[in-house]
Amino acid sequence: MKKLGFIDDTFLRFESRRQPLHIGTLMLFEPQGEAPKDFVSKLTERLRQSNMAAAPFNQRLVVRRGIHYWKETKDFDLAHHFVHVALPKPGRIRELLAMVSRVHCGHLDRAYPLWRLYLIEGLEDGRFAVYIKVHHALMDGVAGMRLLLKSMSTNLDTSLELPPPWEVPTKKSRTRNLPVPSPATGSLAALRSLAREHVNSVIPVLKEVRSNIQDIWNRNPDFVFGGQAPRSLFNQKVSATRRFAAQSYSTPRIKAVADHYQTTMNDVVLAMCGGALRRYLMDLHELPDRPLVAAVPVSVRRDNSELSNEISFTFAHLGTHLSDALQRMVAIKNCMDYNKAHLRKLSPDQSLVSGAIKLLPGALNAITGFSPDSVLGNVIISHVPGPRRTMYWQGAKLCGLYPASLVVDYGALNITLISRHDFVDVGIIACRKTVPQMQRLLKYLEDALVELEDTMQPPGPSSTPTASSTSTTAQRPAKETTVALEN
Amino acid sequence: MKKLGFIDDTFLRFESRRQPLHIGTLMLFEPQGEAPKDFVSKLTERLRQSNMAAAPFNQRLVVRRGIHYWKETKDFDLAHHFVHVALPKPGRIRELLAMVSRVHCGHLDRAYPLWRLYLIEGLEDGRFAVYIKVHHALMDGVAGMRLLLKSMSTNLDTSLELPPPWEVPTKKSRTRNLPVPSPATGSLAALRSLAREHVNSVIPVLKEVRSNIQDIWNRNPDFVFGGQAPRSLFNQKVSATRRFAAQSYSTPRIKAVADHYQTTMNDVVLAMCGGALRRYLMDLHELPDRPLVAAVPVSVRRDNSELSNEISFTFAHLGTHLSDALQRMVAIKNCMDYNKAHLRKLSPDQSLVSGAIKLLPGALNAITGFSPDSVLGNVIISHVPGPRRTMYWQGAKLCGLYPASLVVDYGALNITLISRHDFVDVGIIACRKTVPQMQRLLKYLEDALVELEDTMQPPGPSSTPTASSTSTTAQRPAKETTVALEN
Repeated sequence: MKKLGFIDDTFLRFESRRQPLHIGTLMLFEPQGEAPKDFVSKLTERLRQSNMAAAPFNQRLVVRRGIHYWKETKDFDLAHHFVHVALPKPGRIRELLAMVSRVHCGHLDRAYPLWRLYLIEGLEDGRFAVYIKVHHALMDGVAGMRLLLKSMSTNLDTSLELPPPWEVPTKKSRTRNLPVPSPATGSLAALRSLAREHVNSVIPVLKEVRSNIQDIWNRNPDFVFGGQAPRSLFNQKVSATRRFAAQSYSTPRIKAVADHYQTTMNDVVLAMCGGALRRYLMDLHELPDRPLVAAVPVSVRRDNSELSNEISFTFAHLGTHLSDALQRMVAIKNCMDYNKAHLRKLSPDQSLVSGAIKLLPGALNAITGFSPDSVLGNVIISHVPGPRRTMYWQGAKLCGLYPASLVVDYGALNITLISRHDFVDVGIIACRKTVPQMQRLLKYLEDALVELEDTMQPPGPSSTPTASSTSTTAQRPAKETTVALEN
Repeated sequence: MKKLGFIDDTFLRFESRRQPLHIGTLMLFEPQGEAPKDFVSKLTERLRQSNMAAAPFNQRLVVRRGIHYWKETKDFDLAHHFVHVALPKPGRIRELLAMVSRVHCGHLDRAYPLWRLYLIEGLEDGRFAVYIKVHHALMDGVAGMRLLLKSMSTNLDTSLELPPPWEVPTKKSRTRNLPVPSPATGSLAALRSLAREHVNSVIPVLKEVRSNIQDIWNRNPDFVFGGQAPRSLFNQKVSATRRFAAQSYSTPRIKAVADHYQTTMNDVVLAMCGGALRRYLMDLHELPDRPLVAAVPVSVRRDNSELSNEISFTFAHLGTHLSDALQRMVAIKNCMDYNKAHLRKLSPDQSLVSGAIKLLPGALNAITGFSPDSVLGNVIISHVPGPRRTMYWQGAKLCGLYPASLVVDYGALNITLISRHDFVDVGIIACRKTVPQMQRLLKYLEDALVELEDTMQPPGPSSTPTASSTSTTAQRPAKETTVALEN
């Protein structure tokens, strides 16, 4: 039996009926060569033989005196975890996304290890899909991505010999987890021990807090803290129903914009989100005057482990008050540069404490109702690095890797991106009731990218294009949108 | 806005993460004549036009000061409620039951009207299926059955003109519901008003209680009360995962046994359950010495309404301590005859109060732990009358109607039967973790029926068969098992 770390445990404690806290990933695969018609049935049969689950896939939750532990299960029941399903006709991406939207809503059963994998057949174009959901208490997005990639290979033949994700041996993190205060040992004693263990964190964190206060005083536009966000459509109580939408955007096109403006791909992607959200909210006459604020999870993992949660977060405003696409991106870039400079000074634990302190004004506001127009943050935007080469799984080529992350009360929209060498795969998950017609964001993201590309063109119609803008324009027709709108 | 009745409300209050309280029905249909290959796709398109939901299908839950109300929803979202899905290959009944097992686990979202209907294509034999789930707070099994049948016709062509179940106008019950004690008016006052309204119930109920006490004193073997049941495998906390199994048994064969022994089909069916449960528990070396006790819901509906819950219940022992099939059935028959004679003396409300009083010894035992070997009851067995003629829905013939009912903590197994003119359709739902390999019960039910049929044969090999046993034997090869085992 192993006690859960603090953040892992938090994901269990905050779960509720309307708010399941698992994360999902939808993967699209293309069988290679002369694939037989019963490729997926054969694959199903093969995977059903793989019932030697490794940790954490064989660990179930045990509660003793209110404390959570992971315990190896003795009666591992693969048929509960591995499920073969099919899309109804006509088997478009639309039907796939409708199915994932539904399946993502269901809670994982705590009587079993907290994961389930769906092998999905019936796509009209001959591809097949895998949707896997894992409780966030088991791992964060970066750990999950690494684990999935360990079941794949850059070589088609080798991929046939690799075990499925649940049989892959995982690496434990070498970072010590924050201990969970235990009622058994007395919560005061636990808090003391927590403080003692993190005494080294105090000085850099205090420095950071002093700098934050100076920034608030000086109204530094690049400093964003929790509670600065304007109340918006996305910040309401959520229903238990989700809508999932996903699409791929060309990595070379995004990279061309980043290179042209000497910024990062992450900043371009945030600018695309800012542009898309601005337009979505304008359609509904719901755009706040102040810029939307994104909570941006930051991995603080410093090794190649694949377990638990090692995440902190920062805030970025999304420039949604600016009508000019380039101005919007520059504002976002300045804000993110500020964040990165400050995060670099902190250790993983320190950045977590500093993140928590930045939440304080917003949390106080939520309790006191001092400023009813403000909320902690508007939307979660997370960017997870994906594979940099073509990957194969069980004899099929990976052609899409779309994350379906968390939606919580007052955080009804979550945009998560996985960047691969050829495409940035975007997965958007939202409360179906609170965020109407959310799938429009997919098109608006593309439009926002085009807008940014257009800023690279010289303004006059007669002027000659620059080198970088030419290459971008040349690339645009080559864009291949692998996943389309959901109903 | 309409306040919920007491029993309806109870189904909402007692719902929990591991214990969703909706009821489901799986229906099998056979397209008639030269059905086109895209029959189900066409049907899906047609049903997607039907978005004029009638009550209760357009009512969502509203909570005001802790009180539940139904309120007509303004933004009815058919795509949330009506879902088109498909079975994976090879599309056997096994795949269908695996899907229903999974889908039945999910909670209904209280932000929407509490129902969902799945149209399921991909059965290898050309049939298709419908699985509908409705929260038990909306209606009981009898009401649900009537409502489903109102969307069907005995005439193939007429069936094409009928609206889907969610557009069928429903009849309200004329019986006044028990009022819900309201914290707003003060719970003491509410209890007083409850007592005043039911003052007429007191005398017959007191008579019934006196008779019950006499029966306990005299150790009347036909009188069963809550708390008499032996602790068994089925009486543990449940997981959130279910297994659903279903099969049809020949109505003429069951009726032949009932006629031969001048008893009811219901008694024969209970005897089949007793026999099957005895064998299932013996396999696992888990058969208690004392007979298992079934809680048997009894409809107290006295009109043709299709809303709310109008149910009471009684207890029956299942003779599982007896190795002889006929002795077992006689014991069950005596017990049920006793129950019926006593229920006949009571009004619907009185029978509910009397049922609650019979629960008292068991409830007291659960609280005090006085007799740790005893539990309230072992298994719920419910028998709902189904259609007596061949029915058609949307141009297809109904060929199976399998209920998937409730599983609750300490009640991990539920057997519900719907009797039609040609088949008795049995749906068994159980906690997947607590009740291992539950699908064996399907075969054991058939074996138990054969055992009862065999008792109708004269004992010696040389003796001539009686008329009734001949007809039964002749019928046996004609039995058609429409639904087979699940994995």
